[in-house]
Amino acid sequence: MNYTPERLNPLKACRLGLDTHQELTIYLRQDCPVCRSEGFSALSRVLVHTEQRHLIATLHMVTSDLLMPGEIGFSESTWKRMELRDNTSVWLSHPKPVQSLSYIRAKVYGNELSSDQLSEIIDDIVAGRFADVHLAAFITACGGDKLNIREITDLTQAMVNSGSQIEWGLPTVVDKHCVGGLPGNRTTPILVSILAAAGLTMPKTSSRAITSPAGTADTMETLTNVSLSLEQMRAVVEQEGGCLAWGGSVRLSPSDDLLIQVERALDIDSEGQLIASVLSKKIAAGATHVVIDIPVGPTAKVRSNEAAEVLANNFKAVAKTLGITISVLFTDGSQPVGRGIGPALEARDILEVLQNKPNMPLDLRQRSAEVAGSVLEMVNELPKGEGYKEALKILDSGAAWEKFQAICQAQGSLKAPPIAPYRYELIAQAGGIIHCIDNRKLAKVAKLAGAPADLAAGVDLHCKISDHVEPNQPLLTIHAESSGELSYAVEYLEEHLDIIELTTDRKAKT
Amino acid sequence: MNYTPERLNPLKACRLGLDTHQELTIYLRQDCPVCRSEGFSALSRVLVHTEQRHLIATLHMVTSDLLMPGEIGFSESTWKRMELRDNTSVWLSHPKPVQSLSYIRAKVYGNELSSDQLSEIIDDIVAGRFADVHLAAFITACGGDKLNIREITDLTQAMVNSGSQIEWGLPTVVDKHCVGGLPGNRTTPILVSILAAAGLTMPKTSSRAITSPAGTADTMETLTNVSLSLEQMRAVVEQEGGCLAWGGSVRLSPSDDLLIQVERALDIDSEGQLIASVLSKKIAAGATHVVIDIPVGPTAKVRSNEAAEVLANNFKAVAKTLGITISVLFTDGSQPVGRGIGPALEARDILEVLQNKPNMPLDLRQRSAEVAGSVLEMVNELPKGEGYKEALKILDSGAAWEKFQAICQAQGSLKAPPIAPYRYELIAQAGGIIHCIDNRKLAKVAKLAGAPADLAAGVDLHCKISDHVEPNQPLLTIHAESSGELSYAVEYLEEHLDIIELTTDRKAKT
Repeated sequence: MNYTPERLNPLKACRLGLDTHQELTIYLRQDCPVCRSEGFSALSRVLVHTEQRHLIATLHMVTSDLLMPGEIGFSESTWKRMELRDNTSVWLSHPKPVQSLSYIRAKVYGNELSSDQLSEIIDDIVAGRFADVHLAAFITACGGDKLNIREITDLTQAMVNSGSQIEWGLPTVVDKHCVGGLPGNRTTPILVSILAAAGLTMPKTSSRAITSPAGTADTMETLTNVSLSLEQMRAVVEQEGGCLAWGGSVRLSPSDDLLIQVERALDIDSEGQLIASVLSKKIAAGATHVVIDIPVGPTAKVRSNEAAEVLANNFKAVAKTLGITISVLFTDGSQPVGRGIGPALEARDILEVLQNKPNMPLDLRQRSAEVAGSVLEMVNELPKGEGYKEALKILDSGAAWEKFQAICQAQGSLKAPPIAPYRYELIAQAGGIIHCIDNRKLAKVAKLAGAPADLAAGVDLHCKISDHVEPNQPLLTIHAESSGELSYAVEYLEEHLDIIELTTDRKAKT
Repeated sequence: MNYTPERLNPLKACRLGLDTHQELTIYLRQDCPVCRSEGFSALSRVLVHTEQRHLIATLHMVTSDLLMPGEIGFSESTWKRMELRDNTSVWLSHPKPVQSLSYIRAKVYGNELSSDQLSEIIDDIVAGRFADVHLAAFITACGGDKLNIREITDLTQAMVNSGSQIEWGLPTVVDKHCVGGLPGNRTTPILVSILAAAGLTMPKTSSRAITSPAGTADTMETLTNVSLSLEQMRAVVEQEGGCLAWGGSVRLSPSDDLLIQVERALDIDSEGQLIASVLSKKIAAGATHVVIDIPVGPTAKVRSNEAAEVLANNFKAVAKTLGITISVLFTDGSQPVGRGIGPALEARDILEVLQNKPNMPLDLRQRSAEVAGSVLEMVNELPKGEGYKEALKILDSGAAWEKFQAICQAQGSLKAPPIAPYRYELIAQAGGIIHCIDNRKLAKVAKLAGAPADLAAGVDLHCKISDHVEPNQPLLTIHAESSGELSYAVEYLEEHLDIIELTTDRKAKT
């Protein structure tokens, strides 16, 4: 007879409606007998059982009457993962030590991690056996340049294996990734249209914004349906050669989503984990040829050409071993690309470029053609520069615009992006030359105005660095869906007028 | 005019009665306008203001009606730290980036941390500006041997500076620390009695149990009052030369308490942080001469004499720079010391040794005299072995027992430890020789029986390794304050009879 927790009195499950995100959390009354007998206290790791399922969770204590005696509370993610209903019987016990945590300790002492050890770590992360502090330790132990190429390769493979993988049964499936985003810079929908029009297969999945005013999935949502099942996605791609779907509904490289959340909190760069994160998503999505776009600039993620070269070489080495072809492109990372910042405003820019409108944002057209050209050169083995020309030709001919419409129709429909009812225009007080635009503060204005949750909200930028502006010329327009949000954004803007800095004519003359 | 959060509508404070321990946590409704306008989501770090105070907290979201619109929930530690009352007005905004986190990133890349950087990190930890994931990153980045002696020294000094410091105005103030505890091994109260009787000053503060069945403060609580203010502690020490107080009420090296909590979860050894942790507490308590007791054994924290030597040398190097004298003692870490495991049972052992009872646990007497002797040799510059003899003499004379009684009276009173009403005896099924005792499982039985919360609960061990036992001889007795807890402990014991392993007579003869 084993000492199983089933023999103790069970607790009754209670949904508290608390969202602790990925950290699986349970709540117990401080006077709960099991806390006393098992020695559980706040932040203990506890093995939680029902008759069907079990997992390891972090304990928070309740000192009030949120819970009745005999109840156990669950956070939303824990409730869903354990597939609970109210009053389900729950038993608690001490979890066995998680073996793979000892590999992290070994890494701290400078040991190389084997392929099997990396697989075990990733599997434990996906199974929820790591608390956030353990993820933080893993990220830190592997941070900087502490993973060699062999370890990065094995980590990437382990991340691919831990989730769904899509097989296309085609010799060439293309994809792209941009390392460290710029405001605007919404090239992806244009790229997919150009490349699918050129006969390539590009089953693109994108994320929603997490800290930025818009992600590609938010922007595309203003134009069509992006929540596709794997089957729907496959049907669209088989018909049109490309799709523009939200990646959230397909479980590709699930450990990556968990690691990214903690990486963001720590802001510790790990070149190894960056490469594994990007390539594991692409390999799991079935890509064979990938362009990596690295914007380089003084305030971009990658700040010098030397750093970009090192990163590019490591990307290539790992990709080669894993059997996918990549091409790395260095682009200008010094200012926003396009005019709109926010889902609908970025969608408008995209439509203007695809429709060859006379007033379209030329920088967005050029950047899109540049990245698309790089894919065409890689796949069709064209001389450098020829891909760019071909991409422009596809845009000019209207073929990209036709393909974009067809993809949107296949995903459901093509609709017009919404327009915000509330606006505020920032006017130049004096004439002069724009010499500086603060990307970070610009993104903050767009978020205060309601982006990305309010799809029509954001900022429309009317100038670029080096532009000459006249007195009273509009510099930017804030768009909002409510007057309250408009005033938050305006208030912030008025106190941060250095968002756009001019060398005034008077100053320029002196 | 600044963009201050005061100009937005405040939220009303609400105490939820949730204990998230050291992680400062706030709770907001998912539909709270400030989440939308500021872009806060689950686990965001948020700057929380009242008219008086502010701090950085981690956000958990509420998807149920735990909070009404316009309310903000607080965890217990956040509520207390902000000195809130119900409906206090609260404003939220984005915190400035915590500069010292960038030093941790630099450490990940192998940079040495300067004295100023270590101070800033420790100050930010004490101010609550590090979430647990940041503490985990700091511990991991400094883990293994990644801090050099200069860094360990500066870290120790920064930890001392971050809290209260006690000045005794005396040339010699002694203290001791044991690295990695053994079950039982409650030498401290005996040590303090011997050394104070010898005329030394030993203002001892001790911790309560966190994962073990008893801490020195729990044990002493069964005999006297241990919750002394700094003033009360000073009065006791001035009168008697020593005290036996709980360290929780004096704020010595407060960053250590925060780091230890996460270190335990990670189980990542950091020699640098171990040394800084121990020495910072001692220096802050005003010690000038400290004995470090390192139990060495196959299942102890330190497993070989070589590892113990390295640790001892680093301890000495750091102590020397910081101007305190230390002596390092290697002791036998292969089995429990004394018979009782649990607060009152350990108190009984202590009284037997101090009172020279014929049946006293000799190993506890010897270990106490050994450590006390080492202090006497260091302070009085005695030849090796002479301190041990003198310590035994003080025990034999009754002077230590008299001093112990005087200290307890000065702290309030000397009372008799409680006795548990429920007992269970484990009997040897066959005769034989004890060859193995599982310390970890023994501690678990004591905890299941109710220790340390139930002061009288625990395990009384009747045998030691190499003892010969007859059939039906009692091996141990479980003590409990309730029949329910007794049955938990007995149930576990019956299924883990390998806690005490015998080579039976029959086996021994073959």
